[in-house]
Amino acid sequence: MKTESCFVDEAVEMLLNLRKAVPLVHCLTNDVVVNYVANCLLAIGAAPAMIPDKNEAAQFAAVAGALLVNVGTITEPQAEAMRAAVESANNAGRPWVLDPVAVGVLSLRTSLANELKMKKPSLIRGNASEIIALAGMEATGRGVDSTASMDAAHDAAVSLARETGATVLATGPVDIVVTEGRQTVRISNGTPMMTRVTGVGCAQGAIGAALVSVSADTHSAGVATALLMAVAGDIALENAVRPGSFQIALLDALDALDENEIRQRAKISL
Amino acid sequence: MKTESCFVDEAVEMLLNLRKAVPLVHCLTNDVVVNYVANCLLAIGAAPAMIPDKNEAAQFAAVAGALLVNVGTITEPQAEAMRAAVESANNAGRPWVLDPVAVGVLSLRTSLANELKMKKPSLIRGNASEIIALAGMEATGRGVDSTASMDAAHDAAVSLARETGATVLATGPVDIVVTEGRQTVRISNGTPMMTRVTGVGCAQGAIGAALVSVSADTHSAGVATALLMAVAGDIALENAVRPGSFQIALLDALDALDENEIRQRAKISL
Amino acid sequence: MKTESCFVDEAVEMLLNLRKAVPLVHCLTNDVVVNYVANCLLAIGAAPAMIPDKNEAAQFAAVAGALLVNVGTITEPQAEAMRAAVESANNAGRPWVLDPVAVGVLSLRTSLANELKMKKPSLIRGNASEIIALAGMEATGRGVDSTASMDAAHDAAVSLARETGATVLATGPVDIVVTEGRQTVRISNGTPMMTRVTGVGCAQGAIGAALVSVSADTHSAGVATALLMAVAGDIALENAVRPGSFQIALLDALDALDENEIRQRAKISL
Repeated sequence: MKTESCFVDEAVEMLLNLRKAVPLVHCLTNDVVVNYVANCLLAIGAAPAMIPDKNEAAQFAAVAGALLVNVGTITEPQAEAMRAAVESANNAGRPWVLDPVAVGVLSLRTSLANELKMKKPSLIRGNASEIIALAGMEATGRGVDSTASMDAAHDAAVSLARETGATVLATGPVDIVVTEGRQTVRISNGTPMMTRVTGVGCAQGAIGAALVSVSADTHSAGVATALLMAVAGDIALENAVRPGSFQIALLDALDALDENEIRQRAKISL
Repeated sequence: MKTESCFVDEAVEMLLNLRKAVPLVHCLTNDVVVNYVANCLLAIGAAPAMIPDKNEAAQFAAVAGALLVNVGTITEPQAEAMRAAVESANNAGRPWVLDPVAVGVLSLRTSLANELKMKKPSLIRGNASEIIALAGMEATGRGVDSTASMDAAHDAAVSLARETGATVLATGPVDIVVTEGRQTVRISNGTPMMTRVTGVGCAQGAIGAALVSVSADTHSAGVATALLMAVAGDIALENAVRPGSFQIALLDALDALDENEIRQRAKISL
Repeated sequence: MKTESCFVDEAVEMLLNLRKAVPLVHCLTNDVVVNYVANCLLAIGAAPAMIPDKNEAAQFAAVAGALLVNVGTITEPQAEAMRAAVESANNAGRPWVLDPVAVGVLSLRTSLANELKMKKPSLIRGNASEIIALAGMEATGRGVDSTASMDAAHDAAVSLARETGATVLATGPVDIVVTEGRQTVRISNGTPMMTRVTGVGCAQGAIGAALVSVSADTHSAGVATALLMAVAGDIALENAVRPGSFQIALLDALDALDENEIRQRAKISL
């Protein structure tokens, strides 16, 4: 069994590897957050690209370091591009991440996410309500704003990880990382201010894609995804206490993340 | 007849109610500003969601607190989603807001806005040129940048309010709120810097949707919509004198808005 | 032959003319950067408008001061709108700018950019890899992140300028401006931090459209496009050393640009 500090070591190493490799992350993400997602990737040290045309998306998924699929503002043409990109990524052996935004009640995204979850994503990232809904349990979601308890989220994450083979990151006041056959990891860094800026969770999914492109261990990459974003949130909160300035301070904090910040701030429990 | 301070009292109460209710605001808005609109809603205390697929938009309009329709970057598929969402909102008894961006010359948005204005919006928000054009008067608009005089806008607002039954908010150096059978209200807070950042007017429309979801009195909600955004602009200008920093300061000011700020700063005339 | 200071004089004059004329710039640009592009145009003193519907795009291209076509997140419907807008701009004698984002490998954008480059753009702006690819030379691009050497870019720019009649601006550590029959101009202002924020290059293309709308001399406008954005970058870097704050500081710097800043900072060589 790994210790907490082992997960921290791995997160530090992955961040350094990410900055060395500067992985191209192909983001099929939602219209609301696309600019912020791109800037978060640039800030942490990755290279974003958003290629929405179906044919181009498939071409690009085969050469990018990883693919992110976020169904937040899904439309039929975008769903087609996502299917093509996921197939292409899988054929090329590239990892991909699924972010099932607001899955549960709305029809197109729910059926698409349920289809795509079986296409071997490396990581599935969502808030508690979304993970519960994607696991087929009772959906209590209210849009993107999760109110479900983290206990229910844990059970759903375990079920979803078993069903899909993916690492599942369920976010909330405490983030939970679950992979079939591995230790459940809880990360309690972060601040509610991260829910006052649109796109922080979506950007975390994109950073998850960057991390699975530099680490074959998706469980450790899932932990690093939660830890790096939440530690950046903690740093940002020291520099900004209102949401406008926090949005910018979080970008600066992703840029400022380093070994010392991560080691001193990490709050991981097993 | 209400006094000025009565409208201020109501705006304060609506802000408190908004923050208690955290209404889900379904925004079918333009691509340019969608992120800023979402962040403005989060900053003031509401919960944004943008659901562009036609079927999902109709599903969501029936459960959201209110719907915003902004035609700024209208396309045919988006027009279909707007029609479906408006019908669904009306069937479910949910209020909705129309923002007729750049209506007047461009064909698709002009015909769509003229169709939708008869579908019982609670509030119509636009700059002077847009309100004049939507009232069927001589359009003098130059894109989104209003140059028409506020006198002409007042006449147009009166006509449009009578024709549609909606409250009409025409923005400019002085904002005007008109509802058939009610007092015309003028709000002279705000700063020209608000026109140097894209999306401030669009965000005001979204805040208007949040407010009509917590108040059945659309006239008072229209006044509050103008007042809250303009007072936030006044606060922001004290912290930022160039447009980049002002964009961020305005988000912080929406978060900082409280009873004292509103009461001390409000400039309402009847 | 003009001197360096003559190009600086012209850039200063164009900036003043831009602020007097406040040209409407019609941007058919990519989803990732559309908000930042609009805010950069507003910050420097122009008026942005994004009109994606094919029919409306053609209507608007005939009356806007200039058109920008940026293929960064191209889709088939957007390609149709671009064709219609370019034809309309050309028929109305309005200048337009082509930004061939990530051209080279991806099929839809590459064929579209190769088609549009022959439709008389006033200015073509891209990073070294994109200019090389659009000139039909060996593409070495890695998404939008240029790694090609500036020597190869110069040769490609010369070839592309001859083939299309356009002024070509190839950006990199040193920006190069090439027009058939004119002096090659190199601008060495700017900072690598400009590549850590998404949309800075795209905003430069939009500023280029604003400048060709106020100057018939596309070569001088190309130089001014490079110079104004790069000087703004130098100013911003004095106020912000991390990418989040830099993004905002660059908007403030575009607003703060004036004759003194430009004259004192310009680094032009012939």
